[in-house]
Order: sequence, then C-alpha cells, then structure tokens
Amino acid sequence: MSTPASSAAGRGESRSGMRDALVAAAITLFEERGFDATTVDDIVARAGVGRRSFFRYFPSKESVVFPDHEGALRRMSEFLADEAGFEQDPVARVCDAARMVLAMYAADPAFSLARYRLTREVPALRTHELAEVRRYESALAAFLRARYAGRADGGLRADVVSAAVVAAHNHALRSWLRSGGQGDPAEVVEHALEWVRATYSDEVPSAPRGAEAEEDVLVVVARRGTPMWRVAQQVQEALS
Amino acid sequence: MSTPASSAAGRGESRSGMRDALVAAAITLFEERGFDATTVDDIVARAGVGRRSFFRYFPSKESVVFPDHEGALRRMSEFLADEAGFEQDPVARVCDAARMVLAMYAADPAFSLARYRLTREVPALRTHELAEVRRYESALAAFLRARYAGRADGGLRADVVSAAVVAAHNHALRSWLRSGGQGDPAEVVEHALEWVRATYSDEVPSAPRGAEAEEDVLVVVARRGTPMWRVAQQVQEALS
Repeated sequence: MSTPASSAAGRGESRSGMRDALVAAAITLFEERGFDATTVDDIVARAGVGRRSFFRYFPSKESVVFPDHEGALRRMSEFLADEAGFEQDPVARVCDAARMVLAMYAADPAFSLARYRLTREVPALRTHELAEVRRYESALAAFLRARYAGRADGGLRADVVSAAVVAAHNHALRSWLRSGGQGDPAEVVEHALEWVRATYSDEVPSAPRGAEAEEDVLVVVARRGTPMWRVAQQVQEALS
Repeated sequence: MSTPASSAAGRGESRSGMRDALVAAAITLFEERGFDATTVDDIVARAGVGRRSFFRYFPSKESVVFPDHEGALRRMSEFLADEAGFEQDPVARVCDAARMVLAMYAADPAFSLARYRLTREVPALRTHELAEVRRYESALAAFLRARYAGRADGGLRADVVSAAVVAAHNHALRSWLRSGGQGDPAEVVEHALEWVRATYSDEVPSAPRGAEAEEDVLVVVARRGTPMWRVAQQVQEALS
C-alpha cells in the first residue's frame, strides 16, 4: 500500500521536496494569518520558489491543503481494480479500501490535525474536502456496482453501502481528530467498519469452515415485533 | 409542508416575483451560453432588475441554481424538531424528512431537469450541490444523534443511517432525473427508502399489533454461515 508513494518519492526527490515545501509553507501561513488573508504569492515567497511552481503542483489555493488525496485515490482505484480482490467479499473489499484512506491520515497526525482545524474554520476548504470525499465514495460505488451487476437493487445497494462505509470511516476519523490524535485511529475505524460490514456483507467470516461445521444449524427465536436489527445482532452474536 | 412557502409568497408577491425572475433569467442564460460565460450583470439585465437586487437574494452565482434548498432545509428542520414526531420510529421519521426534499424536486420537474443538466456539466455547481446535500445529511444526523443518545454506538449509527438515507434518496432521484423526469419519482424513492428503513429501523410496522399478536414467536432456522443480510431478509419476509 505504501509502495507507490515511496517509489514516487524515489523517482523525483527534488520535485517532491519542492512540493512538500509548498505544502508546509501554505499550512504555516494559513494557521498564522488565516486562509483568506494568505495569497499564493505569500506561499511561494515563504517556500522560496517561483509562482509558476505552485500551479505546476496545485490547481488552486484550496488543493494545497489536500496534497495526498490524489495519490490516495489513485492507490485506492488500483487496489479495487486488482483482480486478486475479486475472490473477496465485495463489502469487505470496500472496507479495506477505506482503511487505505485512514492510513493516509494516520501516517502524518500533525498534518492531519492542522488540516482538521483549517477545514472546520474555512468553508471553502470544507467544501473542497466534501468534493474529495465524494470522489472516494464514487470509486467505491463504481466497484460495488460492477460486483452487484445483475443482482436485484444492485445499483441502490452499491450507492447505499459505499455511503455507509464512508460515513463510518469519517465518523471514526473525526472522533480521532477531535481527540487531538490520541491513540491508534485504526482501532476506532475497525469497530465502525465492522459494524457496516456485518450489516451488508454476504459473508460471515467468523463462521467455522469445513463441511461438518457448515451443516450446523442456527436457531433464533424472537418475539414477533422484535426489531430486525436486534434479530440480526443476535444472529451475529450466535455465530461468533 | 407547502404552507411556509405559500405564506412566504403571500407576504411579498413582488419580492418573490423578482426572485423568480432572477432564477428564470439565470437558468436560461446558463443553458444558452454556459455557466462560466454568464455574469451576474447578464442575469440582472435579462431579468430587468438592478445588480444589487441579485445579491439581496443570492450570495453567489452558484446559489441562484439552488433557490429552493434554503426553504426546504428550514422546513425539514422544523419537521424534525416537531415533538409530534418523537413517538415515531427515528429511522421512519428521517425517511419522511427525505421525502420532503423529493417533493421539492417533484414540484417543478422542468426546473429540476435543467438543474440536473447544469450540475453535470459545471464542476462548481456540482460542488455547491454536494455542500447543500451535506447540510440535509447533517440535519438528519443531528436528529438521530439526539434520538440515539445513551445508546451504544449512537453517534456512529446516526451518521451511518443518515448517510444511507441520503444515498438511497439520491439514487432514486438521480434515476428519475436520468429518465428525463418520466413517471412519479415518489414511487422509486419509496422503494429505496423502505430498503434502508427495514435495515435500520427499530420497528417492524407490518407486525400485528395487540397483546395476543405480540405473544407470537418467530423462529428462524438457518445454516451456520448464512449471510446475515439473508437472515434479515427472511425475518422481514416472515413478519410481513
């Protein structure tokens, strides 16, 4: 998962260095003076590079706050296109793809926290982030749509499951960011993603394998009128 | 649901008339010349009003394409705050709130279709729409968070359910818009929302009421390893 990023850094050390310097200068200035009061000229002056260099790396002032999303989205798309994953349960695969995005945030907690502060304060950045999140969600939905092709409500299921996975991921990510980056975000996200996976997955991975075990019969008795989610929860508990 | 809008129109016929004229002029020009090539000056000239009038009604050129969202969001918030709904199952209530947004689109199919064409072509409008959708989703999530207070994973459940409801609504709305506004969008949305409601609701509305019926016992027998969604589906079928 980290291979493409490492090899990209290896390919062009100086290019990557200039890009990193622009990001660092921008974040520092946005936090010092505010996003609106900082110009692209201020950023290139602080980074010690020419104005044209900025626009070679970033299409806009907003995009410098999300320098890692383009790469993460590309790696996620490659991961989802990998035929090795076609054997895996589609929902579990999509949860794994969401874990890749989390890994990006967890790789640089200080940067992620600075960005979190900025996106909460600057509406333009929040909107930009929404558009980025939407791109991840669309990639997950496209993958699921292909996997659910021919299935009743396949398109609906693809859209709802991808939205649920993204919402669970973002819920966990936000609580980690709100805590100031305390602890391991992977654990919080694990719990949230597992909740969604158990709801929509076609597989019950905790079920015992083998012919004999598969012949086991599970009996659930519930009063008529029991909410379905509670029945599903009981089934899950009985199986694990 | 339509009362607040009607009374607003009644309060200031001419104000509402000027606002409508600006929207109509803007949409016509955006479709004729393109969004980027149309200025606010072009819009006010076509509508026959002063430049300042535009900014009295709309903060930006983008927002004129979404003139009804502010009102729909206000009506949705009022609906969710209404104590009469506190007796209702929270997920069913949130689905009803989503139906209010659909009613806004269905009320003026020609305008909704023109907007759909524009948002597909103009990235700035697509991003603006994402931000609007996010506001609906946040309102639904805040409502659910309050209703799920004290419940295990209440915050996670609130975020995931509201995202699932919005995704289901948008999936159905998009297929209606893609069809060119054929038929009744309410029917398509009904099916999509019911799918989400059945997954997350605390209630099984089709269960028989009354003391005797509640004593009924439901027995589910499944082979160990049966996917949970299939168990849930069978439970639902057995209950209805």
